[in-house]
Amino acid sequence: MAIERHYTRHAEGSVLVAFGDTRVLCTASVEERVPPFLRGKGEGWVTAEYGMLPRATKERTQREAARGGQGGRTMEIQRLIGRSLRACVDRAALGERTITLDCDVLQADGGTRTAAITGAYVALADAINGLRTRGLVKREVIHGAIAAVSVGIWQGLPVLDLDYAEDSACDTDMNVVMNDGGGFIELQGTAEGHAFRREELDALLGLAAGGVEELCRLQRVALAA
Amino acid sequence: MAIERHYTRHAEGSVLVAFGDTRVLCTASVEERVPPFLRGKGEGWVTAEYGMLPRATKERTQREAARGGQGGRTMEIQRLIGRSLRACVDRAALGERTITLDCDVLQADGGTRTAAITGAYVALADAINGLRTRGLVKREVIHGAIAAVSVGIWQGLPVLDLDYAEDSACDTDMNVVMNDGGGFIELQGTAEGHAFRREELDALLGLAAGGVEELCRLQRVALAA
Amino acid sequence: MAIERHYTRHAEGSVLVAFGDTRVLCTASVEERVPPFLRGKGEGWVTAEYGMLPRATKERTQREAARGGQGGRTMEIQRLIGRSLRACVDRAALGERTITLDCDVLQADGGTRTAAITGAYVALADAINGLRTRGLVKREVIHGAIAAVSVGIWQGLPVLDLDYAEDSACDTDMNVVMNDGGGFIELQGTAEGHAFRREELDALLGLAAGGVEELCRLQRVALAA
Amino acid sequence: MAIERHYTRHAEGSVLVAFGDTRVLCTASVEERVPPFLRGKGEGWVTAEYGMLPRATKERTQREAARGGQGGRTMEIQRLIGRSLRACVDRAALGERTITLDCDVLQADGGTRTAAITGAYVALADAINGLRTRGLVKREVIHGAIAAVSVGIWQGLPVLDLDYAEDSACDTDMNVVMNDGGGFIELQGTAEGHAFRREELDALLGLAAGGVEELCRLQRVALAA
Amino acid sequence: MAIERHYTRHAEGSVLVAFGDTRVLCTASVEERVPPFLRGKGEGWVTAEYGMLPRATKERTQREAARGGQGGRTMEIQRLIGRSLRACVDRAALGERTITLDCDVLQADGGTRTAAITGAYVALADAINGLRTRGLVKREVIHGAIAAVSVGIWQGLPVLDLDYAEDSACDTDMNVVMNDGGGFIELQGTAEGHAFRREELDALLGLAAGGVEELCRLQRVALAA
Amino acid sequence: MAIERHYTRHAEGSVLVAFGDTRVLCTASVEERVPPFLRGKGEGWVTAEYGMLPRATKERTQREAARGGQGGRTMEIQRLIGRSLRACVDRAALGERTITLDCDVLQADGGTRTAAITGAYVALADAINGLRTRGLVKREVIHGAIAAVSVGIWQGLPVLDLDYAEDSACDTDMNVVMNDGGGFIELQGTAEGHAFRREELDALLGLAAGGVEELCRLQRVALAA
Repeated sequence: MAIERHYTRHAEGSVLVAFGDTRVLCTASVEERVPPFLRGKGEGWVTAEYGMLPRATKERTQREAARGGQGGRTMEIQRLIGRSLRACVDRAALGERTITLDCDVLQADGGTRTAAITGAYVALADAINGLRTRGLVKREVIHGAIAAVSVGIWQGLPVLDLDYAEDSACDTDMNVVMNDGGGFIELQGTAEGHAFRREELDALLGLAAGGVEELCRLQRVALAA
Repeated sequence: MAIERHYTRHAEGSVLVAFGDTRVLCTASVEERVPPFLRGKGEGWVTAEYGMLPRATKERTQREAARGGQGGRTMEIQRLIGRSLRACVDRAALGERTITLDCDVLQADGGTRTAAITGAYVALADAINGLRTRGLVKREVIHGAIAAVSVGIWQGLPVLDLDYAEDSACDTDMNVVMNDGGGFIELQGTAEGHAFRREELDALLGLAAGGVEELCRLQRVALAA
Repeated sequence: MAIERHYTRHAEGSVLVAFGDTRVLCTASVEERVPPFLRGKGEGWVTAEYGMLPRATKERTQREAARGGQGGRTMEIQRLIGRSLRACVDRAALGERTITLDCDVLQADGGTRTAAITGAYVALADAINGLRTRGLVKREVIHGAIAAVSVGIWQGLPVLDLDYAEDSACDTDMNVVMNDGGGFIELQGTAEGHAFRREELDALLGLAAGGVEELCRLQRVALAA
Repeated sequence: MAIERHYTRHAEGSVLVAFGDTRVLCTASVEERVPPFLRGKGEGWVTAEYGMLPRATKERTQREAARGGQGGRTMEIQRLIGRSLRACVDRAALGERTITLDCDVLQADGGTRTAAITGAYVALADAINGLRTRGLVKREVIHGAIAAVSVGIWQGLPVLDLDYAEDSACDTDMNVVMNDGGGFIELQGTAEGHAFRREELDALLGLAAGGVEELCRLQRVALAA
Repeated sequence: MAIERHYTRHAEGSVLVAFGDTRVLCTASVEERVPPFLRGKGEGWVTAEYGMLPRATKERTQREAARGGQGGRTMEIQRLIGRSLRACVDRAALGERTITLDCDVLQADGGTRTAAITGAYVALADAINGLRTRGLVKREVIHGAIAAVSVGIWQGLPVLDLDYAEDSACDTDMNVVMNDGGGFIELQGTAEGHAFRREELDALLGLAAGGVEELCRLQRVALAA
Repeated sequence: MAIERHYTRHAEGSVLVAFGDTRVLCTASVEERVPPFLRGKGEGWVTAEYGMLPRATKERTQREAARGGQGGRTMEIQRLIGRSLRACVDRAALGERTITLDCDVLQADGGTRTAAITGAYVALADAINGLRTRGLVKREVIHGAIAAVSVGIWQGLPVLDLDYAEDSACDTDMNVVMNDGGGFIELQGTAEGHAFRREELDALLGLAAGGVEELCRLQRVALAA
């Protein structure tokens, strides 16, 4: 995995993540307002939107804006990204502002949602460091780091999705979002071919923990650069 | 949990499921056509749609048809129901027809998606038994039963969502879809308050397995009635 | 006709109406706000929404939320229900609050709109009685009762739609909304086959008046229970 | 009322109707195809669409195309126009073609739907005469003429809406669609202020019959010109 | 070209423009509010909307409101009309109010957008004269007049679109919006068949200048009537 | 200007264009089908779609897919790109296939539409070269090259938009699309502040011709690499 910070210049955080052939541009935008349900409560909000360029994929897919709205898969992914990142944010410390994490897939080769989460964390950290530098936040806003991997059972064997084999070739596909303390944030597992047994699940969770640990290390290296 | 079959009269399967104060009407509709991507392939399709009556909830929620479309939560839930039920269906044995599982929440008190999956399985079984009776399918179409429970960590303790405490009061909320052989079909866990540790996850999975086993027994009783 | 009150538990009024094989769930929801055009005028509002579960009908119909909006028939029906019920409400006595009547068809066998109006009246009465009990309204809010029947010409003879013969088999189909004082609130007649003559219309109106009288009696019995 | 034929040049029928200050342009468009549900049945179709220019009214109303769709009132009116005109058409004699009646209000001053029906009949007759001239239809397609009036109770008195007093000033507003044989096609009555009694209804129906008779005479004069 | 003022009665300006067989109804509506981005800035706004009646054209086109929104061509045209008319308006002198120019094509035969601009200017002038008469504006609001022509290369020759030959028959189609001082406001040229050379462009611009001069004269005559 | 080919790997043509701080990713996708209006005519189609990532701009703009559709500006730009590129394509030589040019702005700093056209030409050329290599097209498909510049009057002086000064600071903004033979394809000029005079227009056209010549040279260099 490669993490390139400051990829575009306007956003408060802007990270290009490369996972195999997958490329996701994650930007963090800070706005000095919160959604209506939070007004006047002294808390901030972190939300995410996800998109895929029409020709990020092998076959061109229809542009969602042209089709008239976001599909179910897109909504599901962006809700996952938002929940995952909120898990490391102290929203009271953030104050009444919104950070929007836009994750746009420039090139897709499996694992776009886990790449998006891993990259969005870095963009979020950059945005919050900027707020701190400008004196707009005082306390720690982020507690721990968040990263995500995809694990699966491929030809009967549990594998960490390091080589980005096509998702659909797996019998089971599980996305695991964890923090750098080894705690689970989100777990989404789907049996594609046959139901998976408890011991398979245990093996997958072990692989995931190791993968996330490595990703968190890479995030730290990137942020220290 | 109570399962009432033949709740409405037009659908090929029609089941009212009661989980605590939650009431979900699950109907299975058989249509002699398949979506475009399956035409001519000799396989059938199983899909699901989910809805909530506006006043199923404590506060009235806006009707999705009036708002102009289904929201992200609805899409996420109906995709989950569809994937879960397809996991027990031999689509070649079903033949070129579509079964749509409509899960409409009449009254909501937590756990609507797991109630929907558990009830939709019974509606699906009724619909397929009807096809068999009429000689339209020959081979076994359904392999195993599917049920779902919600488990969570409530005040530090893993609980099976038997008493339907408000979802949002839990620190962790996990929906577990399993078959009657103890295999996992879908796993969706979200840390609401703090990240959950591996041993908590293990406890939750154990509780879920027991809960699904009981639900599958109740499904068998209902279908034998 | 059967009227079952308190069918679901969250709504301020919740009535299941059965007319032949038709089943409509009518809920009344009270909200302490009014639409923009009424703000600050000291008056309340009563409105209605109508929906049909996809498999309420013999053939499954597409879910309006999935199709992206309400169709013309739905809008026409919900506008009719709203106007009909507003006719018995003193909106100044109601005060600045909105009552929304959600009429959802669980099973359809003709006459869904007249069943909806007749049931929605009972749900509305329950909701307003609740406001009175809590001391939120002082004066009489409801003046008279409202009920509706469908009448038609079937094989040359005027019939009250008591046996719920298929609407489309009639030459003329008329929905008549009246109050319990014998006054007309809404009249919607359509010649399906041939234009209807004045004497046929007179006969239909006579039948309707008798039918509504009986429905108003059943409403009183239900509300007294 | 004034009826001006051939108001625009492309449509097979094009009529400008003036009722008081109301101006509706009614065009009839013939297309050699039918909607999917009629394909191959040897029958034609007649349908209507209704629109109002944004500044046809005293205050500008939002353009429906800009707002993203037709509202409930528009759908209700165009469904009424379509049903009314289909009542005089022998769809088998029309053959597999569709006639669309577009009724666009250039200036509104009450009674737009009844003006639209009355004018659309003339446009329809012109379109069908054109088909006959070109030898495309053989048998009589239209049976009888259709016209519509609005009647109401104004300050306690039944009035024929000849002087186009503001609709909303009436206690009761009834739209009556009839044929030139005195038969009723559609009846839509709404009590605005108080419920109307049977004797008031009888008086309104008498007024309507006289009004439609006069409109049918004016249609004949216009078509003979 | 013919310009008929006061074509409908409710709008503050209402002009029917005829260019060959093209007929466009242009109304100007004054509203005492401005869009959110201008609130409190002491400036007004001028905007335009464009529509085409379904049977304005040779073949019926689908009604945009029925299709669910405005298409790209419509948006492009209404943005052009709005920009063009704003070019002659002193928005500070107008004050915090909005003038909406609705241009609806009753009959189309080429050149609808240039006819719309030319007619909308007259409707705008009428609306502003009305404001002045009522003492609502003090200073000059309009500076110069705006008109538009279409020019093109037809069979190798530059032509002013006086005879309204079908747009699509031209090799090049250019819409030129100018003021009565000979200044250019908008220029939109499209090579339909072959790219056009600089000398062709020069000839087209010369023709356009002459055409606009004549249209401005006709506008003055109409406004003086 | 910098042109980077093969920026992403799935598309038949994929070009990142940099104009000042503007970055546009232009992909060309080949599909073996044509829109309905061209079926069976032996001709191909070239079309374009345009999008802007939400944080390509200084302030975050709302995602069009989330807002429910493409706005007027987007439609106008993508129609311009499509028409411009079709001007150099022999659609009969292309055969019955569609090439879609997706132009997505990663970072915006003025001139996005002209950068998109200039880059899309290179992506189109790559896609067509690929078709030729695979023997799918025989004859020359592209005739000439297409590029676009923005020119304007800035502080009274005509300038070629080489330094990408903010569009809105110009009194006049003109987008000029030309081919490498000096012919004009599209011309879109807008007077922002004051109407522009003929001599100013002449100066702008001269500047544009020089700018396009240079861009066509850079395109040739990039395609030869």
